[in-house]
Amino acid sequence: MLKEYIGIIEKELENCFEDSRFFIHQEIKEAMAYTTLLPSKKLRAIFALETCKVFSGSYENALGLALGIEMLHSQSLIHDDLPSMDNDDLRRGKASNHKVFGEATAILAGDALISYGAQTILEKTPENVDKETLCKVLNAYLTAAGAFGIVGGQIADINAENKKITQEELDFIHKYKTSALFELAITSGAMLGGANSQEISDIAKFAKAFGLAFQIRDDILDVISNEEELGKTIGKDAKANKSTYVTFWGLDTAKEKLLNLLKECYDIMDFMGIKSNVYKSILEKMEIKK
Amino acid sequence: MLKEYIGIIEKELENCFEDSRFFIHQEIKEAMAYTTLLPSKKLRAIFALETCKVFSGSYENALGLALGIEMLHSQSLIHDDLPSMDNDDLRRGKASNHKVFGEATAILAGDALISYGAQTILEKTPENVDKETLCKVLNAYLTAAGAFGIVGGQIADINAENKKITQEELDFIHKYKTSALFELAITSGAMLGGANSQEISDIAKFAKAFGLAFQIRDDILDVISNEEELGKTIGKDAKANKSTYVTFWGLDTAKEKLLNLLKECYDIMDFMGIKSNVYKSILEKMEIKK
Repeated sequence: MLKEYIGIIEKELENCFEDSRFFIHQEIKEAMAYTTLLPSKKLRAIFALETCKVFSGSYENALGLALGIEMLHSQSLIHDDLPSMDNDDLRRGKASNHKVFGEATAILAGDALISYGAQTILEKTPENVDKETLCKVLNAYLTAAGAFGIVGGQIADINAENKKITQEELDFIHKYKTSALFELAITSGAMLGGANSQEISDIAKFAKAFGLAFQIRDDILDVISNEEELGKTIGKDAKANKSTYVTFWGLDTAKEKLLNLLKECYDIMDFMGIKSNVYKSILEKMEIKK
Repeated sequence: MLKEYIGIIEKELENCFEDSRFFIHQEIKEAMAYTTLLPSKKLRAIFALETCKVFSGSYENALGLALGIEMLHSQSLIHDDLPSMDNDDLRRGKASNHKVFGEATAILAGDALISYGAQTILEKTPENVDKETLCKVLNAYLTAAGAFGIVGGQIADINAENKKITQEELDFIHKYKTSALFELAITSGAMLGGANSQEISDIAKFAKAFGLAFQIRDDILDVISNEEELGKTIGKDAKANKSTYVTFWGLDTAKEKLLNLLKECYDIMDFMGIKSNVYKSILEKMEIKK
């Protein structure tokens, strides 16, 4: 089921870059498509589609959202990897965008992905979704994309380098840098599936717990994994002298907190009566044995 | 009348950056606001407001659009000035964004302005504008912001450096890099003013002629002006070995073509029965005597 979703998302993303408007803008298209189309878990897009399906029985209404979020996520990776930011040469197992296309084109490809992601939501959301809901979803995308979302998180992350920060500051970074896109995927997916405001507020708690779990797992993998498995530079948090959940709590406690958060996710599913094998199999894959 | 509009736009832009959502994101706000709030002619925003007024008697419906375009324009200036692009230290008479805030923050401020510009259109367009029209205007903004607009133009511009290009290639660069935002301001301003499709198509011709005139004038000023007047680095086209309309045609022919395009603008106004002192006074200021 995860594989089916990944197949749909990959095919639809490819379609987005075959849009005829790119015919006279090939070079920027290549750079935009390069990072976006590299194999990846597509977790955020899957959450958007599946959450819509949980509430409406079909993922169709969230297709534009899912594609838009993947573009936005790719944008954030491209800009985060730039020499003036994390200066990372490896992403999704390949050379990062600026290593292939140069710094100027990588910056511009990221810029163009921010707007093309929003445009994809506008253009690929089915006509049966009312424009009021569409505008709300767009506003959620724009909030997550900017100062009140991933940009706000990235600025805080940069400022935290080589500094001793508090756990509150670390939470702040990841709330905006990591959780924002999961919250966007899940709450907007619910909105497009016709969830009511109570359901959206409940599922938002799932998204927050999952987002934090995802970050803790990422911090653990940065210590225990190897580059080939992970497809990105490992051990870089330590090299950059960055505070992580592992440096705060140690490895064992981090693993325990991860499991607690995953349990919280299952509990919210139970409470809401969500029986989704897709949710379940994502949560299972998140586990790291103690 | 131009001054009144500038006053309105400056005040409303300041309001946008006093939004309470910025309270916990001060640093990125400072960088976003810095370039956006520097004194400038606000031509694109004025065109948005005045074109809406031409068709509806009031500029109110286009306020969000005008503010969004100013943010987008500032974004393009911030990213164009980056070391990996034009590497320019001076903008709007002051140190450019990355000279003040550093490269990483300047990139992120630009990113955040792309989404905040779109969000401002969503949030500051009055409720009486139907959501169908609002979505069309947003799509126009996103088109102008990305690969099919200013990003496409900037990529072509970078590729043209130190190369001999044809006039067609120069036209391509400026169609996307410069005209795109004037076309957005004027056609979307008309849309928000309730213009019909014939009127939108006619006023789009005005926008195209004006956009080209603006670029030719810019190329002329880069040769004959001084930095204090212009507020940005001058003579940089020649230094960068860039083809411009002046290198193509020489100064006299460029001035003549500028006057012809301005005449075309007046003719379109006459043909459409547009009696706007604001349009007229902008066109008058564009003149450069032979």
